[in-house]
Amino acid sequence: MNLNIALLPGDGIGPEVLAQAVKCLEAVEETFNHQFNFREAAVGAIAIERKGKPLPNTTLSLCQDADAVLFGAIGDPKYDNNPDSAVRPEQGLLELRKALGLFSNIRPVKVFPALIHNSPLKKEIVEGTDFTIYRELTGGIYFGEKKLNTEGTVASDLCEYSEKEISRIAHLAFKAAKNRSNKLTLVDKANVLESSRLWRKVVTKIGESYPDVTLDYMFVDNAAMQIILNPSQFDVVLTSNMFGDIISDEGSVIGGSIGLLPSASIGEESALFEPIHGSYPQAKGMDIANPVASILSAAMLLEHFGLFEEAMSVREAVDKSLRKKIVTPDIDSKSQYGTNQVGDFIAENI
Amino acid sequence: MNLNIALLPGDGIGPEVLAQAVKCLEAVEETFNHQFNFREAAVGAIAIERKGKPLPNTTLSLCQDADAVLFGAIGDPKYDNNPDSAVRPEQGLLELRKALGLFSNIRPVKVFPALIHNSPLKKEIVEGTDFTIYRELTGGIYFGEKKLNTEGTVASDLCEYSEKEISRIAHLAFKAAKNRSNKLTLVDKANVLESSRLWRKVVTKIGESYPDVTLDYMFVDNAAMQIILNPSQFDVVLTSNMFGDIISDEGSVIGGSIGLLPSASIGEESALFEPIHGSYPQAKGMDIANPVASILSAAMLLEHFGLFEEAMSVREAVDKSLRKKIVTPDIDSKSQYGTNQVGDFIAENI
Ligand SMILES: CC(C)[C@H](C(=O)O)[C@@H](O)C(=O)O
Ligand SMILES: CC(C)[C@H](C(=O)O)[C@@H](O)C(=O)O
Repeated sequence: MNLNIALLPGDGIGPEVLAQAVKCLEAVEETFNHQFNFREAAVGAIAIERKGKPLPNTTLSLCQDADAVLFGAIGDPKYDNNPDSAVRPEQGLLELRKALGLFSNIRPVKVFPALIHNSPLKKEIVEGTDFTIYRELTGGIYFGEKKLNTEGTVASDLCEYSEKEISRIAHLAFKAAKNRSNKLTLVDKANVLESSRLWRKVVTKIGESYPDVTLDYMFVDNAAMQIILNPSQFDVVLTSNMFGDIISDEGSVIGGSIGLLPSASIGEESALFEPIHGSYPQAKGMDIANPVASILSAAMLLEHFGLFEEAMSVREAVDKSLRKKIVTPDIDSKSQYGTNQVGDFIAENI
Repeated sequence: MNLNIALLPGDGIGPEVLAQAVKCLEAVEETFNHQFNFREAAVGAIAIERKGKPLPNTTLSLCQDADAVLFGAIGDPKYDNNPDSAVRPEQGLLELRKALGLFSNIRPVKVFPALIHNSPLKKEIVEGTDFTIYRELTGGIYFGEKKLNTEGTVASDLCEYSEKEISRIAHLAFKAAKNRSNKLTLVDKANVLESSRLWRKVVTKIGESYPDVTLDYMFVDNAAMQIILNPSQFDVVLTSNMFGDIISDEGSVIGGSIGLLPSASIGEESALFEPIHGSYPQAKGMDIANPVASILSAAMLLEHFGLFEEAMSVREAVDKSLRKKIVTPDIDSKSQYGTNQVGDFIAENI
């Protein structure tokens, strides 16, 4: 297969971890006889510095022309505490999601048995956890109208959803549930929000065409508790952009390392793959960042194009690295291995 | 002291647990020579059934005339999955908060050493956790304009905040931090939301008049992780209505039992005290609900009126019940004690 892959390293540890994913894709290229054409572009804080905006036009068109995007990480603390700064790195990611129409963010939450001792949760609670979150990614309060009055004393954000926005991701989530354990949990705040009530109505209706899938509903505050109290109850979780941001990050740490979790953002015509973790600026350039989430994002990319055997070989190499403790210090504080060495080991085992 | 206390038992287990709190207040009355005048009114699902709306006028005026409100719980699942139902029990609570101007919801998150083994988190992680969440309660997306187009295909909720709404609760939170460990964490999503950026601006400015308090900022998605990874880092957490709903419920389970946690909702002229837990309809009338959160809500009420010694005697009686294992089954599954017996024991020890 011939694939054009746009590489967006971004900020912080993004470039380091992405480089390991690329090593692995190159190993796949060679072993399985594919051709992957990589082209790189700037996004985020680095793009603001170089080109004055977080998503330069050249970066966007590179992504639009590519078959898929492999993304590193975004964000720089120097923009965070300055509410007046008109450009912010994260805008680059948000604009990219919107421009590529990546309406569905898919995040597996899984416990790696070898790492269960790293979980903040007790073993008996977290054991067996294996669910997938479908987070709506191009609507809701993230993209609704934002206002600030001229005196700067009243600010607002609009959370709006249409039936169409809800139904396209709902269908993906129901299909995923059919391929898993036939359970879908809609997380919302329908006892307070009008938009959540529309989610319930639309998802309930769509559920009728997936009779095998059991649909249940959970308020987001309760979901935030249930993810800690009884995470193995979930199979597929479907939710809006903002709630998905919160509960998927919460879910991401229960398995013992956020450094292991990939995500896929899917649209009608584009697909982007990125680790769940952030840009972790304190670790930048220190060769300590865990490259596994980025490498598993590459595996999700391969699966997206039907390259299941290839993806499996990447996953198996990752499992081997975990078993043999060829891991970064976040997984095992006594470990001497750096980002690059872990990446090399995994790539060599593909 | 002479206090008029409005009792709003509400739905589910509300009446049962509230009755235990009243027992304890009656014990305080007798022991410390106060006069508490209790008057009861309906709110929530029960009020819908009896009077056609979740917050009848008589209930509201009773609360307005009272010195404080003691609240049970609200909600009935029969309204939850019916997005079209025009009246919902929760509206009663929301209207009450708004009408009484209860802008600040204060929720202590604490680990009871005797119950640390009940926590879903590992002991070494949760140990020493002791923080208080200040959640804005009468603004934001809860009360912003709600819209549904006539076709029923587009729905929206407006999240709006004014400087005034932010600053009044910020002052309370800074003052609380001064009386605690001088640390305030503002939880927001300033990298995405305009309203969050206003929160950062206003809170940062107010922070200048509290030079002893260290102010830091955390994105809500990160906060959802940090509450599980390292909860003892927090002292006072300040946040908006919606984010506070989610993270305070998340925080409420890390201590081992949500059945123990009270909350206070404070306004310029009114104050309402209620357990953090919900109406738990499955347990209704079974005499298994934990009354401690409701009893500790009564203790917060006493403190609100400066009755510190009285509040302390309630807290000590609760501690004694925990030490002696006079507890409901949620705390110790082998326990034979019911809601009433636990309430009696605590009241007798005041
Ligand atoms: C960086 C930020 C804008 C982004 C989001 O909130 O969507 C991130 O937290 C994520 O979840 O991918
Ligand atoms: C019952 C519901 C409307 C309420 C809220 O969301 O505020 C509850 O969850 C709470 O936190 O007190």
